[in-house]
Amino acid sequence: MVEDEHFRLDWVTPADVGHRALACALSDLAAMGADAGEAYVALGVGGGLGSAAALELMRGAEALAASAQVTIAGGDVVPSPIGFVTVTVVGWASGLLAGRDGARVGDLVGVTGTLGGAAAGVEVLGGRLARGPHAQAQIARHARPLPRLEEGSALARAGVHAMIDLSDGLASDAALIGSASGVLLEIDLDSLPLAAGVPTAELAAAGGDDYELCFCASPENREPVEAAVAGISWIGRAVPGSGARFLDAAGEHRLTAFEHQLG
Amino acid sequence: MVEDEHFRLDWVTPADVGHRALACALSDLAAMGADAGEAYVALGVGGGLGSAAALELMRGAEALAASAQVTIAGGDVVPSPIGFVTVTVVGWASGLLAGRDGARVGDLVGVTGTLGGAAAGVEVLGGRLARGPHAQAQIARHARPLPRLEEGSALARAGVHAMIDLSDGLASDAALIGSASGVLLEIDLDSLPLAAGVPTAELAAAGGDDYELCFCASPENREPVEAAVAGISWIGRAVPGSGARFLDAAGEHRLTAFEHQLG
Repeated sequence: MVEDEHFRLDWVTPADVGHRALACALSDLAAMGADAGEAYVALGVGGGLGSAAALELMRGAEALAASAQVTIAGGDVVPSPIGFVTVTVVGWASGLLAGRDGARVGDLVGVTGTLGGAAAGVEVLGGRLARGPHAQAQIARHARPLPRLEEGSALARAGVHAMIDLSDGLASDAALIGSASGVLLEIDLDSLPLAAGVPTAELAAAGGDDYELCFCASPENREPVEAAVAGISWIGRAVPGSGARFLDAAGEHRLTAFEHQLG
Repeated sequence: MVEDEHFRLDWVTPADVGHRALACALSDLAAMGADAGEAYVALGVGGGLGSAAALELMRGAEALAASAQVTIAGGDVVPSPIGFVTVTVVGWASGLLAGRDGARVGDLVGVTGTLGGAAAGVEVLGGRLARGPHAQAQIARHARPLPRLEEGSALARAGVHAMIDLSDGLASDAALIGSASGVLLEIDLDSLPLAAGVPTAELAAAGGDDYELCFCASPENREPVEAAVAGISWIGRAVPGSGARFLDAAGEHRLTAFEHQLG
C-alpha cells in the first residue's frame, strides 16, 4: 500500500494504514480458507509517513495481529521518498482449500456480510456522498476492514466450490471466479446485502475494499453452508458462459468500473 | 529496495535490481545457516520503473531463484509514483542455526570470500574511483551479489558461535555481533581479504553489499571450519568489551561511516 495511491493520511490514521495493510493480506488467506501463519512487514519511511507515523502504523498492524492471533515475525524498514507498507503473510492448510476455479454450472453464488460500506466511506471522505448517520461506520469500514478468516475457513470446510475476497469489488472479483472456472456468474443486483446507508446496489457491486467473501456452492450444499457461517446472502447462480454479469429488474445492468478516487 | 535510494536504473539494469533484491533477502537466511524456502515479491511500478522494466526485474529475480532452487510463490504489483521492490523469503532450519549473540571471548573472527568489491563498484559507477582492469567485476559484484547459502549452512553445521551477512559492511555488521554477544571484535585491517582492485582496506571494511559472511568460532574449531568452507580468512578475535574495533600497524583505526553514495 502506497501513500496517496492506496491510502491518504488526511483520511485515515497511520494506525489505520497498518491495520488495513495486514487485513488486506490476511483476507487473501481467508479467501482460500487457509489458517493465518506469520506476517512480515516492510516499511518505506518518508514522504508523509515519517518515523513517528511509521511507529503508529506498526502499532495498528500489531493490534490486528494480536486479535487475529498472527505473529509479525520480521520485516525491514528503509528510507523512501514516499511512504509505503508491504505485508506478506504465510498461511497453512489444515483441511480443504478453496480456489477460484472450482465453480460449476448450477452453483449458487453467496456472499458474507454486507457490501458497499467501504466504498461509501471513500465517497464520504471524498465529499461525493453526504455525511449521513452512517458516515462514521462507513469510514471505519474503509479504515479498519476485518479479514473474514473464520468465515473463510468454515466455508472451505463446508465444501464451497470456489471463493474470493472482495478487495477490488464484486464486479471485478466475481468475474475472476467466473473466468477461472469457465462459468458465468449471474448476480441479481436487487439481492445484494447493502451495508447501512449505501445509496445504490451499483456502488455495493462496483466498490471495493469490503473484504467480504464471495463463493459458489452447489444447491444441495445450501443448508450446510448456511449453518457454517451466520448472515450469508445468496445473490445469484452460475450458468454457462464466462465471467460475471449483473441483472436488475430491467435486465442486464452494465456496471461501470468504479475507480477508488483517493484524489 | 527503492528507486534512487537503493538502486539507480542508470547504473544497473532492472534485471539486476530483481536479482539484488532477492539476493539480499536470501543472504539473511545464509547468515543464520537456514535453508531457503519460498519467496514473495511485491512490486511498486511507476517512476523510472515502468511495466516493461518491472517484467525485466522479475526475470532477474526468477533467474536467481532458479539457480538457488527457490520458488517465487506469490506477491503483488501496485502502481506507485516511484519504483520499489520488496522481497520476503522464508527459511527452514534443518539443523543448527547461527545467531548474532553467541560469540565468546577468545573466539576467532572469520569471513568468507573477498571484501570491498561491491563498494569499489559503486565508487567506479559514481566516478570516484578510476575504471581499472577490475571495473567490470566490481560493478558486477554490486549489481549481482550472490548469497552465500551453502557456505552459511556449512558454517552453522560446523558449529560457529555467531554469524552475520555483510550487507551494511564489516564495520557496522561486526559491531552488531559484538554488541549482541557482549564481546569486542578486534579486526586486523591488514588481514582483510581484499577483492581484486580494491584500493584500501578501509573501503573493504566500511563499504557494504558484499554479502559475504562474518562469523566467530572457537580456536579449537578452526580446522573443521576451514574444512567446511573453502577460502575463508581469519581476520581477528573476540576480546572483552562490546562492539567492534579495527586495528592497523599504527594501532586503532577509526573508520568513518561509508555512505553508499548513489547520488
